[in-house]
Amino acid sequence: MGKKYVYSFEEVKHANTEEWQFALGNKGAQLSEMTAIGLPVPLGFQITTEACRDFYVAGKKWPAGLESQVKQKLAELEKKLGKRFGDKKDPLFVSVRSGSYVSMPGMMDTVLNLGMNDDTAAAFAEKTGNKRGAVDSYRRFIQMFGDVVMEVEHARFEEILHRKKDTKGVQFDTELTADDLKEVIDEYKAMVKKETGKLFPTDPWQQLKMGIDAVFSSWNTPRAVSYRRINKLRGDAGTGVTVQSMVFGNMGETSGTGVSFTRNPATGKKEHYGEFLINAQGEDVVAGIRTPKPIDELGKLLPAVYKQLLNVYGLLEKHYKDLQDFEFTIENNKLYLLQTRSGKRTAHAAMKIAVDMEKEGLVTKEQAVMMVKPDQLNQLLHEQLDPVAKKEAQVVAKGLPASPGAAVGKVVFTAERAKQLVDEDPHTKLILVRLETSPEDIEGIHVAQGMLTSRGGMTSHCAVVARGMGKCAVVGCGDISINEEGKFFTVKMKGGELRFNEMDWISLDGGAGEVFGKQLPLVEPRMSGDFGILMKWADEFRRLGIRTNADTPKDAQVAKDFGVEGIGLCRTEHMFFEGERIKAMREMILAENTEGRKKALAKLLPYQKEDFKGLFKVMSGKPIIVRFLDPPLHEFLPKEECEIKALAEELGFTVEKIKQVIVSLHEFNPMLGFRGCRLGVVYPEISEMQARAIFEAAIEAKQEGFDPMPEIEVPNVITVKEFRLIKEIISNVAKELDIEGRKIHYKVGTMIEFPRACITADELATEADFFSFGTNDLTQTTLGFSRDDAGKFIPLYIERGALEQDPFQTIDQQGVGKLMIMAVEKGRSVKPHLDIGICGEHGGEPASVEFCHRIGLSNVSCSPFRVPIARLAAAQAAIKEKMKAGKAAPKGERAKKKAKK
Amino acid sequence: MGKKYVYSFEEVKHANTEEWQFALGNKGAQLSEMTAIGLPVPLGFQITTEACRDFYVAGKKWPAGLESQVKQKLAELEKKLGKRFGDKKDPLFVSVRSGSYVSMPGMMDTVLNLGMNDDTAAAFAEKTGNKRGAVDSYRRFIQMFGDVVMEVEHARFEEILHRKKDTKGVQFDTELTADDLKEVIDEYKAMVKKETGKLFPTDPWQQLKMGIDAVFSSWNTPRAVSYRRINKLRGDAGTGVTVQSMVFGNMGETSGTGVSFTRNPATGKKEHYGEFLINAQGEDVVAGIRTPKPIDELGKLLPAVYKQLLNVYGLLEKHYKDLQDFEFTIENNKLYLLQTRSGKRTAHAAMKIAVDMEKEGLVTKEQAVMMVKPDQLNQLLHEQLDPVAKKEAQVVAKGLPASPGAAVGKVVFTAERAKQLVDEDPHTKLILVRLETSPEDIEGIHVAQGMLTSRGGMTSHCAVVARGMGKCAVVGCGDISINEEGKFFTVKMKGGELRFNEMDWISLDGGAGEVFGKQLPLVEPRMSGDFGILMKWADEFRRLGIRTNADTPKDAQVAKDFGVEGIGLCRTEHMFFEGERIKAMREMILAENTEGRKKALAKLLPYQKEDFKGLFKVMSGKPIIVRFLDPPLHEFLPKEECEIKALAEELGFTVEKIKQVIVSLHEFNPMLGFRGCRLGVVYPEISEMQARAIFEAAIEAKQEGFDPMPEIEVPNVITVKEFRLIKEIISNVAKELDIEGRKIHYKVGTMIEFPRACITADELATEADFFSFGTNDLTQTTLGFSRDDAGKFIPLYIERGALEQDPFQTIDQQGVGKLMIMAVEKGRSVKPHLDIGICGEHGGEPASVEFCHRIGLSNVSCSPFRVPIARLAAAQAAIKEKMKAGKAAPKGERAKKKAKK
Repeated sequence: MGKKYVYSFEEVKHANTEEWQFALGNKGAQLSEMTAIGLPVPLGFQITTEACRDFYVAGKKWPAGLESQVKQKLAELEKKLGKRFGDKKDPLFVSVRSGSYVSMPGMMDTVLNLGMNDDTAAAFAEKTGNKRGAVDSYRRFIQMFGDVVMEVEHARFEEILHRKKDTKGVQFDTELTADDLKEVIDEYKAMVKKETGKLFPTDPWQQLKMGIDAVFSSWNTPRAVSYRRINKLRGDAGTGVTVQSMVFGNMGETSGTGVSFTRNPATGKKEHYGEFLINAQGEDVVAGIRTPKPIDELGKLLPAVYKQLLNVYGLLEKHYKDLQDFEFTIENNKLYLLQTRSGKRTAHAAMKIAVDMEKEGLVTKEQAVMMVKPDQLNQLLHEQLDPVAKKEAQVVAKGLPASPGAAVGKVVFTAERAKQLVDEDPHTKLILVRLETSPEDIEGIHVAQGMLTSRGGMTSHCAVVARGMGKCAVVGCGDISINEEGKFFTVKMKGGELRFNEMDWISLDGGAGEVFGKQLPLVEPRMSGDFGILMKWADEFRRLGIRTNADTPKDAQVAKDFGVEGIGLCRTEHMFFEGERIKAMREMILAENTEGRKKALAKLLPYQKEDFKGLFKVMSGKPIIVRFLDPPLHEFLPKEECEIKALAEELGFTVEKIKQVIVSLHEFNPMLGFRGCRLGVVYPEISEMQARAIFEAAIEAKQEGFDPMPEIEVPNVITVKEFRLIKEIISNVAKELDIEGRKIHYKVGTMIEFPRACITADELATEADFFSFGTNDLTQTTLGFSRDDAGKFIPLYIERGALEQDPFQTIDQQGVGKLMIMAVEKGRSVKPHLDIGICGEHGGEPASVEFCHRIGLSNVSCSPFRVPIARLAAAQAAIKEKMKAGKAAPKGERAKKKAKK
Repeated sequence: MGKKYVYSFEEVKHANTEEWQFALGNKGAQLSEMTAIGLPVPLGFQITTEACRDFYVAGKKWPAGLESQVKQKLAELEKKLGKRFGDKKDPLFVSVRSGSYVSMPGMMDTVLNLGMNDDTAAAFAEKTGNKRGAVDSYRRFIQMFGDVVMEVEHARFEEILHRKKDTKGVQFDTELTADDLKEVIDEYKAMVKKETGKLFPTDPWQQLKMGIDAVFSSWNTPRAVSYRRINKLRGDAGTGVTVQSMVFGNMGETSGTGVSFTRNPATGKKEHYGEFLINAQGEDVVAGIRTPKPIDELGKLLPAVYKQLLNVYGLLEKHYKDLQDFEFTIENNKLYLLQTRSGKRTAHAAMKIAVDMEKEGLVTKEQAVMMVKPDQLNQLLHEQLDPVAKKEAQVVAKGLPASPGAAVGKVVFTAERAKQLVDEDPHTKLILVRLETSPEDIEGIHVAQGMLTSRGGMTSHCAVVARGMGKCAVVGCGDISINEEGKFFTVKMKGGELRFNEMDWISLDGGAGEVFGKQLPLVEPRMSGDFGILMKWADEFRRLGIRTNADTPKDAQVAKDFGVEGIGLCRTEHMFFEGERIKAMREMILAENTEGRKKALAKLLPYQKEDFKGLFKVMSGKPIIVRFLDPPLHEFLPKEECEIKALAEELGFTVEKIKQVIVSLHEFNPMLGFRGCRLGVVYPEISEMQARAIFEAAIEAKQEGFDPMPEIEVPNVITVKEFRLIKEIISNVAKELDIEGRKIHYKVGTMIEFPRACITADELATEADFFSFGTNDLTQTTLGFSRDDAGKFIPLYIERGALEQDPFQTIDQQGVGKLMIMAVEKGRSVKPHLDIGICGEHGGEPASVEFCHRIGLSNVSCSPFRVPIARLAAAQAAIKEKMKAGKAAPKGERAKKKAKK
C-alpha cells in the first residue's frame, strides 16, 4: 500500500487538530471541519502537504500514486455532483488553491474556474442561462491560469482588458458585455501563444495537472521563501492543494463574494464585520477596483442570504469557540463558505472577546484564558506607532524585534552626544543608533526613546537592557551601514541609498523590528478592565511562580505593579558602571594585591548596599535573587586611548601599566573565560564585599520595618567544590553579622548555565538551596552558538531546516531542554523540594514558559514588561497539561468523570 | 564509635593498595606492608591523613578521639618494646614523620629522636654505653625540633655548631666529643629560650603532641602549597603522620644510614646501587657535608649487614615486583628498613627493567607492560637537555610543558625574522618567543628549534602545532614579559630583572616546562631493543585502535613508523595558509556571491587534491579521517594595516571593502561562532570543493596502485539535519565521480564536540558512519572554559580544590566523560557497531586513553610522537580491566578458575 495523498472533505471527521492542519494545510483542514458540522461548503478534495514534500524529493515530479488518487477523487466528485470534467452538457469546474500549516496570505498561488474551455464555457452558459457570467468566468480563468501556471506577466492581460474598456468607453469590468469579453478571450489566447509559444491548454485534466504543479511549485517562490524566513516558519512543511467544485459569485445581481469576521477584530465588539461585492469573484475584492460594501447592507440587497449569514456567525462561533474570519461566495442567492480561520485581532479585541465569550457562556474561564496569545500582550504594555500613519509609511529597514513598543526621535550616534543633547533640552526625543551597545552606553540608552543597532541578536546587550527598561529597540539591523565618525547611516534601497544624518527623524516599531524614515505619530497604550479580569483568571490556573529580572527599585516597582512575586535575577554588575563606582571598580581591577583590592572594594560597598536596600524596600516580603558579579573584568576597563590616559591620571598609574592590565585581561572567548564565580574563587574579597553589602542592606531594611528576603546566587558554577568555596565566604559574613540571630532568612543557590552544572546537579544540590537556569549561557554552550555571533547565520539555518527555531528566542527543547530535565531530576533526587527557576531571556517567552511548567520548575523570571505575558503563558501551560491529562486518562476514568456530571 | 585515626604497623595486612596509600600516606602504608612481609622495620604506628583533614576542619585542633588513640598506641608500643616514653632507665625514642598519598620530597616536616631530655639522654648513654652517640642524638633532636616545631631559624643552630667546631679546630661534627656536644646543647637551649621566649619542652608527651601538630601544619606551608600547585597534586588530601621507634645510625662505627635501589635506576642494569654513611643519621646524607660511600663498600666494612642487605634486595623485588628505592639504618650491626617506595627511573631503565624482570620470571608480560609509565616514553622520543648540565643551570622561568623534548637556540621574536635568519644561515638555531602563536607564524615555527609563549594553554595553537611537529614548546609562561617592538623579554627575579635580547641564547625543556637562560648541551634520543619488545607486548593486549592526527605526508610517515593504524584527524585548514593558497582563500572570503566563491575555490582545489593524494599514498590501505574546513573565516584574513593594503592591491579590492569584511566577520566568541559545518551550510560550495578534492585525489591514488580509504568528517555538528545537508553535498560529488563504481570505499561521519551532539547522538547515528569526539571543544563548552583563557586560573582552581585536574590535559570524566558515555550509548543504540574515536589532544594522554577504553571507543588518535604512549596506555587499560574483572568475578567463579589451575 502506498501513501494516502488525497482526502475528500467528507473523509476527515475531526480535522481541526494540529496534526490534520499540518497534514492537509490549515485551509483544507477547515473545509473538512466545516463540512463535518453541516456548513454549506462546495464539495471537493484535498491533496496533502506530504504529497508536496514528496514532489520536491522526487525532483519536482508527482510521487507515485498521486495521479491515480487524484483521478479517483475527481471521479467521486463528478459522481456526487452529477457533473463531469470537460463535459459538453454539464461540465464540472474547480478551484485549485494552496494552503500550508499556517496561513501565508498571498504568498502562494490559486486558480479559479479551472475546467473552462470553449465547449465547457458554452455548456455552462447554456445550463445557467447566464451567458455573460459564463464568458466572464472563462475570461478570468484564462487570465489567472495564464499568469499563475503559464507565467505570463499579469500586466499583459490587464493591458488587453484596459484597451477593451477604453474602446468601449466603460469604467468597470462588469460593464463589458458577453461579446466584449469573448473578444478579450480571443486576444488573451493569441497573446499567450505569442508569449509562451504554446497553445492555451483546453483539456481540463491537463489544466488540473498543471494547476496542481503550479501550487506545489509556488511553495518555493522567492517571495514565499522570504516570507517564511522573516516569519520564522518551517521551510520543510510544504503546501496542501485544495481542489474544490466552483461556485460562481459572478453570475449576476443575486451572486457575489465577501469576507467577514464573527466579531469586530479591532475592538472585540460583538457586531457584524466584513464586506462584500455583488457579481464578483474573490480576486475582485482584493484587487480593490470596486469598493466593497459593509456586510450589513447585504440585509437590504439579499435578505435571504443575509439570514443564512447570521446563522453562519452563530454556528461558527459555537463550534470553534473563537472569533472566525471566513470567506463566502453567493451563487444565485445561495451562500457557500470557502474558508474559515481563527481571526487575527488586536490585543484589546482578544481580551474583550475572551472575557465576553466567557460571560456569554460560550467558553469556560479556562478556554477564555487560552484565547489570548501571551505575546500579544506586548501591544498593551507599550506605546505603539499610530497604525494608520504606519500603514502609509515606508519601512526603510528591518532588524530583529528586540524590545517591543515604539520610539520616535532624532538620530544620534553616541551615548555622550545623546546625554549632552538631553541635558541641553530635556524634551529632546532621540534614537540612539549604534553598531552595538555596551555597558558604557547605559546613560545614553537611559535618555533615548529607543535604540537601533546594526549588530547583535535578541539577547545582545542592547536587547537585554532595552527589555529591562521597557524601552523600544530594533537590533541586528544589517540593512543599515553606520558611519559613526561621519555621523550618518545609510540604507541601500532599490536604485540608490537613503542617508540619515544626526538629528534626522526616524521611527521604530520594536515589536515588528521595523525602521521608518520619518517622524510618525504615537498612540498611548491602554489597559482595559478585561486585562485585569483575564490576569486574575490566569493566576487561578497557573502553578509556576512568576518573578522578574530587575536591577533597580524602579524596574522592581514596574514588575510589582504587573503582579510579580519576587525578583528572579538582580544583576549586580550593572550597578558598577555609573560615576564614582566605575572608578572604584577600575581601581580594584588594577590593584596589585589583595590589600589594594580590598581598599577599592570598600569604596564600592556603600553603593552596593544602597542599591540592595532600595530593592529590599520595594520587594518587602518577596524573595530577591541577587547574582554575584558575573562579567569578565575587562568589560569594566576603558578601550579608547584617551580614556586610558584619563584613568591613568585619575588613579595615578602609568598608561603603560593600565595597558598591560588590559592586555593581560584580554580574552579570546570572554564568554568562556574568567568570569562568574571564577572571579570569587580567585579574588574571594569580591564575594566577601558583595555578601556584606547584601546583608548590611538587609539589616538596615529590617530595622526600618521591611521584610528583606535575600537569595544569593552564584553564577557560572561547574563544580560543587567551587560552589562550596563561595558559600563559605557568604556564611562567614552572615555569621559575623549575625543574620540568623536577626531573623533574616537567606538562601544561597547556584545558577545552572553550563552543561557540567546539569550533569553534576545532584552534587550541586547537596549544597545549594536553589537552582536557577541561565538558559542564555546554557544555550550558547550546549549548541556552541555565541548569541552575539550566531545571529548572522541562525535565520539561514532555520530557512534551510537545519534548526527549527531560534534557540535564543525559545528554548531548544531537544537539546538544551534535555540537559534541563537532567538537572531537575538530579537536583530533586537529592532535595525533592528544591526550588528551581529560570532567569534567562526565555523566562518570558510563552513556549519556553510552557516547557518550564512541564518539566516542573518552581518559577520563571523575566523582564518587568513581560510579566503579564509570563503569567498568561504559565496559566495556559497548566490548562494544556490538564486538558492533555484528561485526554490521556484511561477510558474508564473519563467515563466515570462524565457519569458524575 | 568515633573514627579510627591511628593504626599500628602490624594492624594493616595488605596496605599496598591505593585506598590504604591515600588513607595512611604512602610511607605509612609501605611500613605496614614491609612489616607484614617480615622485613626488619622498627615498630611504630601511623596517624591517618583523615586526621589531618579533620585537624584543618576543626580549625587546626586535634579532632575528637585522636589524642586517646595516640596514647593507646603509644602504650602498646611501650609494651612491645619494653621501653617507656620518658623513662629514666630504658627510655623510648620515636621519629615523627610526614607522608601524603604521593611523595612530596622535602616539602613537609620530620623530627627524629623525639623523647630526648636531659634524663632520657643520660639513661640512653647509660644503657648503650655510648655516651657520645646519646649526646649527639640529643643535640640533633633539639636542633630539629627547634627548627621544625618551634620555628627557630635553622641558621641559629648552625652558627652555634660552627662556632664550637672553630673553637675546637675540627672540621666534621663527628670530631666533636661528647662534652663538646653537651656544651652545644646548653647553648642551643639558651638560644631557643631567647628566640622564642619559651623553655625547650622536656616532657616527651608534650614533644610528641607538638611534633604531630607541626607535621599536620607542614601540609600547608607555602612551599608545600606551591609544590602541589606545580605538580598538580590534590590540595585536600592531607598528610599522614608516622610515629616510629627510633633506631640510631649514629651509635659508632657499626652503625650508619643509607639509601639504595634494587637495580640501577639510570640504566636499569641489575646491580647494587646506593650509598651510605657510617655513624650518621638520615639528615647527614642529605646535608652533603660528608661524602657517602657506594653501597658495595659496605661488604668490606660490615659484611654481616651487607648480607642482610642483599637479602632485602631479593625480598623487596620479589614482593613488590618492581624497582624499589629504600632507606635503611644500621644500629650496631643490625639493619632496619625505614621506608620503601617504587623507584623513580629513566625511561630506558623502565623499559629494561620491565623486559628483564619478565625474562627473570619475576613478572608476567602483562605485569611488565604495566611497569612503564606511558608518559615516560616522551623521554625516548625527543632530544633532551644534558641532565648533568641541566642540574647545574638555573631555571629562570616556568611555563606549561606543552610539547616534550628540548630546544636550544637564540631568541627571536617574529616568525619573519626567524625565517630571514635561517634563510641567511640554515644552521642558525632559534627559539621563537611570542605572546602566542597564530597560523601565520607557521613558517617561523617550522624553522625554529622550539617555541616559548607567554600565553595560551596546553591546547593552544602553539602547543598543538608543536606536538604535531614533535617540536619542543613551553607555553603560557606568565613569568616572562615580552616587548616585541623592543626585541627583548624580561623575567622578574629576586632582586631585579633578567633581560634577554634578540639573539641571546636560551634553552627549553618542553617536558618540564622549564626555561634556562643559557645554551645547554643536548643529548640525542636513543631507542633500545627493549622498546620494540615492550611495544609488541602492548599490542598483544590492547583493544583500542591507535590513529594519529596528521596533516602532511611527513607527519603521517612519522606516525606510521611509530606503528599507527590510520589517521584519526587530518585538519584541512592548515593546508590553506601557504603562499598562493592563502591568496585564493582570501579571494573566496571576499567574494560577493556564490560565483565569485566558486571561482576562488577552483584555485584551491588542485592544492587540496595534491595534499590528500600525498596522504593517501603514505597511508595506503589505512583509513584517513579528513575533517572539513573548521575555523572561522576571519582567521584567514590579515590583521595589520599594511597587509590589508597589500591584499587590496593584489586582489583589486578597496581597502575599505576589505576592512568592511573584516568587521563583518569579527566575532565576540569565535569558538562559538561561524565555523565548522556552519560554513558548509551557508556556503555549500566550500564543502563541495573539499569533497571533490578528496575524491579526485583518491581516484588518482587508486590509479597509481595505492589503496585510499577516505573517511570524511563533518565538524561542529549539532543537528542531524545539518549533517544531512553536508552529507548530501558529499554524496552528490561521489555519485558524479562514480566513487563506488571505482571501488573506493568511503565513509561520512561526524565530530561530537558540542554537548548537543552528545544529547542527540541517537539521531546523528542514523546518518553518520562514524563518530569522533573532539574533546577540546567538548571540554570548552561543557565547562564553559575557553582553553586559551582558562589557563590563567586553572592552576589556582586545582590548588584550591575547585578542580581536581586540568580538564584540557586529562578528560574531565565526571563532566565531559558523562556526556561522552551518553553519546556512545545513544549512538550504539542505533548502530551497535558504530565506529567511535577521539581526536582531541586527550587521545594521547594515558588516563584519558584508559577512559576511552573503558567506555568502549573504537580508537584514539593523537599527535605522531605520542603514538607509542597511546599504544602502551591502551594496553595498560585493557590489562587493568582484565585485572578488575578477575577481582570482581563472583567468588564461585574465582574458585573455579583456581581449581582449574
